[in-house]
Parts: sequence; C-alpha cells; structure tokens
Amino acid sequence: MTLPDEAITYARAHRAPTLRELEALIRFPSVSADPRHAADVRRCADWLAGRLRRIGLEAVRLLPAGRHPVVYGEWGRRPDRPTVLVYGHYDVQPVDPLGEWRVPPFVPTRRGDDLFGRGASDDKGQLSAHLAAIEACLRGAGRLPVNLRCLLDGEEEVGSPGLAALLRRHRRDLRADMVILSDTRMLGPDRPAITCGLRGLLTLELEVRGPRCDLHAGTFGGAVHNPIQALCELLAGLHDASGRVAVAGFYDQVRQPGARERRAMARVAPSDAAILREARVAGGWGAPGFSLHERTTVRPAVTINGITGGYQGPGSKSVIPARAGAKLGIRLVPDQDPMEVERLLREHVRRCTRHTVRAAIRSGARSAAVSLDPCHPVMRVAAAACERGFGTRPAFLRSGGTIPAVRSLHDLLGVPVVLLGLGLPDDRAHAPNEKFHLPNLWRGTETLIWFLTGVGTGSWRHGLDAADSSQARASLGAPFS
Amino acid sequence: MTLPDEAITYARAHRAPTLRELEALIRFPSVSADPRHAADVRRCADWLAGRLRRIGLEAVRLLPAGRHPVVYGEWGRRPDRPTVLVYGHYDVQPVDPLGEWRVPPFVPTRRGDDLFGRGASDDKGQLSAHLAAIEACLRGAGRLPVNLRCLLDGEEEVGSPGLAALLRRHRRDLRADMVILSDTRMLGPDRPAITCGLRGLLTLELEVRGPRCDLHAGTFGGAVHNPIQALCELLAGLHDASGRVAVAGFYDQVRQPGARERRAMARVAPSDAAILREARVAGGWGAPGFSLHERTTVRPAVTINGITGGYQGPGSKSVIPARAGAKLGIRLVPDQDPMEVERLLREHVRRCTRHTVRAAIRSGARSAAVSLDPCHPVMRVAAAACERGFGTRPAFLRSGGTIPAVRSLHDLLGVPVVLLGLGLPDDRAHAPNEKFHLPNLWRGTETLIWFLTGVGTGSWRHGLDAADSSQARASLGAPFS
Repeated sequence: MTLPDEAITYARAHRAPTLRELEALIRFPSVSADPRHAADVRRCADWLAGRLRRIGLEAVRLLPAGRHPVVYGEWGRRPDRPTVLVYGHYDVQPVDPLGEWRVPPFVPTRRGDDLFGRGASDDKGQLSAHLAAIEACLRGAGRLPVNLRCLLDGEEEVGSPGLAALLRRHRRDLRADMVILSDTRMLGPDRPAITCGLRGLLTLELEVRGPRCDLHAGTFGGAVHNPIQALCELLAGLHDASGRVAVAGFYDQVRQPGARERRAMARVAPSDAAILREARVAGGWGAPGFSLHERTTVRPAVTINGITGGYQGPGSKSVIPARAGAKLGIRLVPDQDPMEVERLLREHVRRCTRHTVRAAIRSGARSAAVSLDPCHPVMRVAAAACERGFGTRPAFLRSGGTIPAVRSLHDLLGVPVVLLGLGLPDDRAHAPNEKFHLPNLWRGTETLIWFLTGVGTGSWRHGLDAADSSQARASLGAPFS
Repeated sequence: MTLPDEAITYARAHRAPTLRELEALIRFPSVSADPRHAADVRRCADWLAGRLRRIGLEAVRLLPAGRHPVVYGEWGRRPDRPTVLVYGHYDVQPVDPLGEWRVPPFVPTRRGDDLFGRGASDDKGQLSAHLAAIEACLRGAGRLPVNLRCLLDGEEEVGSPGLAALLRRHRRDLRADMVILSDTRMLGPDRPAITCGLRGLLTLELEVRGPRCDLHAGTFGGAVHNPIQALCELLAGLHDASGRVAVAGFYDQVRQPGARERRAMARVAPSDAAILREARVAGGWGAPGFSLHERTTVRPAVTINGITGGYQGPGSKSVIPARAGAKLGIRLVPDQDPMEVERLLREHVRRCTRHTVRAAIRSGARSAAVSLDPCHPVMRVAAAACERGFGTRPAFLRSGGTIPAVRSLHDLLGVPVVLLGLGLPDDRAHAPNEKFHLPNLWRGTETLIWFLTGVGTGSWRHGLDAADSSQARASLGAPFS
C-alpha cells in the first residue's frame, strides 16, 4: 500500500479513539478571554502536548505567547521535502449565556452525527482532523510525506496577541512552504469550501461616565444626563437610518469589489434567503447596494457585542448609574487600516459625546483583513484533496470572520495560507449549543491526508513558475482573481 | 413631668440600645426585589414584630401582602382620641454594584456621626425614629397621647404591590385621622423639610429580540440588525436633542406649576449649583425652561435604570446576541395617568421598532404622583414639632422620588399624609455606601414625640373648620398653595 492508502486505512480503523480524544479535548474549559480559566487553558495545553507526543511528533513543547502558551510539535527536517505548517487553536469562546445551553458546554454530548460542546467545531473538532491525519500517516504509514510544523494557539479567541512576536522569535524553526488550518466553514455537509479572504477585526471598549457614584433616579431623574442613555445615543449614532456606518471617513479605505468578483461570488455564495434562514431572522439589514453575503465579507461592519449598565437583576431599581459600557467589534475589509479606523472611531466618539458625560475608549485587538489568492498552486493541491475527501470540488469564498493569526502567519512567514474549513453554517460557533458534524471529522482527516500527500509530491512547485510567486506572496489584500 | 418630657428623658437615656436595635435591623439583607432574599425579608419581618411587641404595641402580627408581609402593631382604641397611622418599610434596595461599597452593606458600620449600611437611611434608620418615639412614650410615660396604628411595609422598594389590597381588606382596623412617615429627605443636617409632593412611577422592562439564538459577529455582522443596537436606537429616541421626552403626547397631561408655586420653590429649593454639587456632575441636563429642582419635582422624567445584552465578561466575544433588554423608570407628575403614559410609551416603541427586530414591553409598577396640602392643620402640627425637635421650621418642598404606598394610603384612607423626612441629601439612598446621620435619629425621635403630643391635644381639629376639609382631602394632585 502507498502512504495515503495506509494512512486512510489507519484513520478509518481508529475513528473511535479519535472521537474519544476529541471528547477529552472538549472537556477542558479553555476559555482564553476569562482569567478565571487561565489554569484550565494551561491544563489543556499540557494535555495537547502529550497528545502530540503520542501521535509521534518530535520536539514537542509549550512556547510562551501572551497569557497562554502555544503548543508546538514537529516532524522531519529533510531539505528536499516541502514543509507544511499546521495551525489550530485549543482555546474557546466564553459560554454565556449559559442558560441557553441544552447540554453542559464542557461535557461533550453526542446526538446522532453531531458532537455538542463549546469548541466542538471552533476549533477543537476541526483541529482534531489535522491531528488524526498526522497520526494516521505516522502510525499507519510510519512517516509523513512532508516536513511538518504544528502550532496550536491558546489565544486565537482573544486575537492571538502574542503570536506575531512568537513567529518572529522562532522564524527559523517555523520556516515553511505553506500554512494550512481548519477554522472556517463549509457551505453545507457535502459542500466543501476554501476561504480566500478574512475580514479584519478591531475591538474597542467604550465606557461612558456621568456622576461620580450611582444616583437615586427619583431625586435626580430629569436633571442629570444618564450614562446609559448617553451610551445609547453614541451607539445609535454609529449607523445612519439606512444601516451605513455613520463614522466620518469609515468607508474611505474600503476597496470596492470588482464586477468580476461580485459575479463569481454571486454564483457560489449563499443567497440572501439562505443567510436569513441560517440567522433565523425575518429580514436583512445593513448598508444598501450589496447582497447579504457581500455585506458580511467584502463590506466592513460595526457590531456591538455587549452592553452593560445599571441594575440588571430581578425587578427594578431606581438608579442612575455612574457609568455604562459597551464592547464593539469592527469587521474590516481590504484596504482598511485598523489603526486609522480606530482613530476615526475615537474622533467620532469625541465629537458626539455631549459635555454632560465623559466617554473613554479602551483599545483591544487590531487585525487587518486578509486576501488569499485562490489560483495559487498550493490552493489547487488543496482543492484536489477536497475532491478526494468530500467527492466534490470546493468553493472558494471569502469569510466574514477574522483569524488574526492568519494575518500574522501570512505576513511573517510570507507563504500561502490554506483555510480548509470543516465547520458547518449551523455549528453555532461562539453561540450556545455549539456542535461539530462528525462526518466532517472523518472526511476532513482523509482530505488532509490527501493534501499532505499532494504537497509531498512537490509537483505543485512547477505551478509556481506559472504563477507569479512574488504576486502570490503579495496577494495579501490583492483583488479576488 | 408631662408626657413629652418623660418620653424625651427616656429617649435621651436610651440612645445606645436604640442604636443597637437599628444595627440589628440593618443586618437583615431584606432586599425585596430579589427572590433569593425572600427568606431574609421574612426573618426581618419576624424580628420587627418582636421589636413592636417589646416596645409595648398590641395586636402585633404579620399581615400577608404580595410576596412579603406587612408588620402590624397598634395601641389604643379610645374614640375620643385622634388616631395616627405610622407607616415605614423594612425592605431595602439591592446592593449592586457591590464592588463600590467601602463597607459590607449588611454590616452596620459607624464612622463618627454616620452609620453605614444598606437601608441605614432608606428606611430602617428613619423608621427607627418612629419606633424610638413610640417606645419612649410607652416605656417612659406609660402611654401614647393618641391611638396608634403601625404599618411596616416589606415591599416599598418594589412599589408596594400588595398594599392597596391590604388597606382595603383592613380598612376598618386602619381607620385613622392622619398618616405620618419618614422616608424622605431634609435639605441639610439643620434644615428639616416636610415633603408636600411626590412624583409617580411607572416601571417597564423593554426587550428587543432579533435572531433566535446568538450569532457569530464575523459571519453575520453587517447583514443582521443587532438587538443591542436596535435597543440603543429605541432608547436614544426617547429624548430629543434638547432633553425633552420625545414620546408623542407625553407632556399632554402634565400640569404646569403656577407662577406662585415656582416663586415659592425658588425661595427654598436647592439651587442648580447645589444639585450639581450633590450629584457630582459637571453640568445639568434635561428639558429646557425649568430649574434643575423643577426638572426633578414638577416635571416628569424618563430614566433608564439598567441595560444588558451580549457579552459582558472580561475581554471580547464576537457575538450578535439574540436579545437585549433595558429597565425603564418613568417619573410622573400631576396629572399624568400611569396607564395613559404606559400606553403612549408602548405606542412609541411599537412605532419606532424597525421590522428587523421585535420589541416587547413588560409592565412593572404603576403609581400616580401625589400632592399634599402644606396648609392642612396637621401639617402645622408637624411643622411645630419640627421646630421643637430641630430648632427651626421645616421647608415644604416637593420631592422627585416616589412612595407608591403614600398614594395608596392617601387614596384609600382619605386623610392627610405627613412626610417628615429624616434622610440627608448625601445619604446615598439606593446607592453604594448608604449611610444615616445619627443626630437625625435623635432629633427625629424628639420631633415625633412632639408631633404625637401635638396631635393628642386635638386642638388642630379646630383648624379643620377653617380649612375646607373636603378640599384638603381632595388635595391629592391639587396645586401647591
């Protein structure tokens, strides 16, 4: 048997233990955003390091990065072989609102073909396909067809603040010909997709302060500007009535998608009706002139991810609170510069804040949008692997999400990044009752075995002559082609 | 010695035990709004019933009313004596934000002349002056100069929902010639005040729902109307840029204060500067054309007491939440009808809610404003008592606060209500670090002994001939005179 056959035979024979490993991984409440879970994140990293060792990776260790470590492992340093860097993340989003979970978020629960739990899809399940593929090659065939570097992030859900510095620090060890990761979505169970664009993300916390301490709403109501109200006025003023962002200059750097890209998107992208069905809302919203898919991929968006102020318990409380706050997430597109957009927002808030209150903005994550060339030869290898694994060619689509790590990997390693998604649109990533569709774990594993095999032949290198590799490298932010 | 002298001698000799009783009362976390504290409220009621028995009241018992009982006690049924109904409340506001307390809220803490703790001023401290006065008469002089009914509410802070029905049920037992309570403010430590008007209160909870479950803000941001944003749009739209309430018809029933009342208010009311100093804000806010004192007393106000939605923990979360909610408190003035104002608000929200989300309003408390005639003979007895107790005549002022119980007592008993406040403007009622100024407890006790003595002489009854008693009775909502 050749390598892919041996590996695939192994993978098919070991689905039960692979599932058990995924379940063990989900049990760690590795919520990177919440300092109370710091020890859980660390325990998860230690467990993953053990897993990498068990499947045969070498030089396994934890690399310090920000608050939570990166789990690193590698295999092979043969100069005649291409090197693949596999990226994934083992941290997860917070679970609230906890009351809406029908299963405990950190107790993996199987229902038919689905496995429920926080991180089941994003990214512990998708990551597990890579681990299973690597294990299948090493244990089933005794070797990998490529040199491999495996980088498992513990801070992806908080914007990978330490990753860029880590990549710079370990630049030599991490030299690779390409990066592959699975942290995006397919179009449906039988519709694989490779993501060729990600929006950027700017997170900000906006706080409005009024009186020095909470006031009695009876005594002062009508004479004092309520910080909750002032915050609402600021937040409501971020959009005009049509749904366009009302921050002066906000769209100035936005690259308009070309007619060719818009036609290409329209052919494969989900329709407005499909997006509304998936969101379970009656009607769409947002800046006119674009389809809902376009509004979530090639157009920027300002979203309010949380708001808090005053009394939130049962019943009522007659209070004018001293402060109120909101968390903002601004999704950016090429060629918006996060620093410039932050400056515009700060200027907007400064100009719109009435003198009766004070507004303060705290900076969070800043990551620019990424465009990836779907015509790069490595993308063709990935497409062919998808066809083997899923029985059909993948769609190339932009995503509305953000993976700051992809921006860092692309910028600092200067190689193509393959975003081979194994999540489904109804996986409820970031929401209660997150789940992973297990057939995607099995088909994803085989797709990744085919991908490693395809890369290992090296024949894709010939394509590089055809493609202008400098252009491919600079495709970050390049127009869809 | 005559009765007032004997009682005052007793009161002065028993300040230490009176203080200990108040401290014991503050230790009960009797938060009526929070179901988790239901048992604490009940324990507080039981303790208070014991206290009433110890000071010599008769027929002491708990009367069922809504979720928390009223503590009842009485003394005397002589038909030739006037009957005074003393009202107070033993429930307290919630303590959050807990982090801003410099002392544990339910551990009474003495600092100089101040006693800190939730309810220290509102209303456990003020209520204690009445209990101390009754005790001083009964224990120091062996009798009260009047028949007395004592009604201690356990649901004042949630709008006394069960009180009106209780008053109707026990109408005969509770027949009285007047009501007195201390649950309002003085103008300063040496500036006693009798409150002759209260704003009404309408509380509503507004919830905006969008998608059926939380959505990923990357995947859907820009295409789905965010419920937090829609809620902010609704809340921001409740006022126009000048600070006037923008709900159509909101001011239609508002009675304009007369020029004479405005002049009278201007003479004794706190200045704009004093109110700003007390609120610790840089500038005033609200509908133009009125002083800050007027804006908080004779003008209605819409206040947002709480807002919640999406992720509120540390860091960020990329989520478009399924819902967001706010708690509204609308302060009403004569002649606004709470039902009509609620109808106008519901209509406003219905009209302003975009089709992309759904808004729902839950009704809470509804209580109309109260006006009390400062020229009523009983008010003169109270003013004379204040002069004895505090050494100076009280100011008659309207308050911006609401005591729904006062409305019920006034409506259902049809007698004058004396609001003899013992709280100070800086007591931080409803806020963290609430405190009570203990000299007000001692001077308040003596004032109340003088009041009971004055009422007991019955000479004020002659004044009733002069005053048009039917007019006095109907003074609810009557213009300031």
